[in-house]
Amino acid sequence: MNIAWIALDWGTSNLRATAMSDSGEIIEKLESRLGMAKVASQGGDFESVLLALIDPWLSPDKTIPVFACGMIGAKQGWMEVKYDTAPCSPVTKLTNIPTNSKRITVSVCAGVKQDSPADVMRGEETQIGGVLFHNPRFDGLICLPGTHTKWAVVTNGEITEFRTFMSGELFSLLAEKSVLSHSVSGDGWNDDAFVGAFLDTYQNPAKFLSKIFSLRAEDLLRGTDPIITKSRLSGYLLGLEINGAREFIEQYEIVTLVGSPLLLHSYKTALNKLEITTKEYSGDSMTIAGLNRVQSGT
Amino acid sequence: MNIAWIALDWGTSNLRATAMSDSGEIIEKLESRLGMAKVASQGGDFESVLLALIDPWLSPDKTIPVFACGMIGAKQGWMEVKYDTAPCSPVTKLTNIPTNSKRITVSVCAGVKQDSPADVMRGEETQIGGVLFHNPRFDGLICLPGTHTKWAVVTNGEITEFRTFMSGELFSLLAEKSVLSHSVSGDGWNDDAFVGAFLDTYQNPAKFLSKIFSLRAEDLLRGTDPIITKSRLSGYLLGLEINGAREFIEQYEIVTLVGSPLLLHSYKTALNKLEITTKEYSGDSMTIAGLNRVQSGT
Repeated sequence: MNIAWIALDWGTSNLRATAMSDSGEIIEKLESRLGMAKVASQGGDFESVLLALIDPWLSPDKTIPVFACGMIGAKQGWMEVKYDTAPCSPVTKLTNIPTNSKRITVSVCAGVKQDSPADVMRGEETQIGGVLFHNPRFDGLICLPGTHTKWAVVTNGEITEFRTFMSGELFSLLAEKSVLSHSVSGDGWNDDAFVGAFLDTYQNPAKFLSKIFSLRAEDLLRGTDPIITKSRLSGYLLGLEINGAREFIEQYEIVTLVGSPLLLHSYKTALNKLEITTKEYSGDSMTIAGLNRVQSGT
Repeated sequence: MNIAWIALDWGTSNLRATAMSDSGEIIEKLESRLGMAKVASQGGDFESVLLALIDPWLSPDKTIPVFACGMIGAKQGWMEVKYDTAPCSPVTKLTNIPTNSKRITVSVCAGVKQDSPADVMRGEETQIGGVLFHNPRFDGLICLPGTHTKWAVVTNGEITEFRTFMSGELFSLLAEKSVLSHSVSGDGWNDDAFVGAFLDTYQNPAKFLSKIFSLRAEDLLRGTDPIITKSRLSGYLLGLEINGAREFIEQYEIVTLVGSPLLLHSYKTALNKLEITTKEYSGDSMTIAGLNRVQSGT
């Protein structure tokens, strides 16, 4: 096992470490629920948490460089790392975090901010860097679905503009904490229910706040399969979001989606329904590729 | 003290009892935090909770009628009371709930449902009945702001159509449970911030999901007074809602607002900004008036 460097995706809720070979291949992956928020709430000893996770990869006589991205660079994280300002080339600025251990060095990628409209990202810029690592001439529109979904325009290797949509967080709040929690459950999915709801709010975004209450009323009056209600709730949110992203979508023939397979399925289904072509990349792979780009200096 | 009947507003979170005279005047008010949800979670002995609250008003040798409305008639409440179906005259159907005590009789008003689009109300129909009690010839549009804001069309004494908007619940979830909770706080209010945000999403409802994240980003990048952020969050929600209610608003010159003074202020400010005239009634007073209407059989 010849570990050349370690890729670290340290977000709010998860910590994902990947041991990389000199030639950029994945040797091993380790994952922990000790996300930034949990470690911060437990006193913030980020170095010890990291060393405990990657201990099997370390040796006393060698220093392995760790390249990190995500909310670990936020104010509440290990060390606050300044944002780069769009338009900018993603994942080009690194900040070194001093460590007590000599077995590792730690560098964190800068997030990206936008002054107007005010917006921020931490972690997604690395995934965008990953798309550029695989395709250095990439020009176009990237959508990164998640808790705070980003839509970013990339031109000449730079993030020129982006918008964050709170759809993912709103879905969780509505499904788990609102009156809809009595009507939404299950792991299943219904594409038809999703698409119908998506088109409803895509065509009439202002109907969103009454459509979501209607999900509860329909269940009370007629009893609705909670999987159908869940798929519709997701559809109403995506209709509102994708209508809001039209200013970007209308300029491009293809939307490049970066994220987890489950989330990408709904975005792909919705966009394809509008006859917009999509191309998908795994979010995890793009994070590692983006960190590979910065560690190799390409 | 000559109590003729008791008006009961028993909602999800609160229980409000009002002792009424024969001539429809308020003698005394009592209030408790033992809303329907709390009593249901504690075993559901609604009769004991009610008797404990209104005990000072009761005597062993007299039966006092209690007229109730609200979520107390829901499935999880004291006894499930069927909905009346719109179009219908509000607060005309009563269901008697059997009690062990001979000191009271309890009647609960039917809620109102709408088949398509599916919608329900429990309590607001009584407030609409209150508007009709004060003005039997009322025809027009009534907006009842709250956790689940209702917009209802009243024609010839009937609720002909209505829509529920989840703005109030969404405001609470976003302000208290989302990433925005770090940026929203305080009891103050800023009308200018509210109006600016209201117009933003009223004109561009599909911007809602990105506008609300921008509140967080602006605070991170520039630091925003949490009162300003709170007022803007409220404005973005009302812009989305009021655009969604346009199909009703465009048919009427006046919107009749029924609710608490604080909530009515924001709706009045927003609607007046669109040059729509508003008329305001207190929600508590309309509940009592609606129950007065049904108990007096007018």
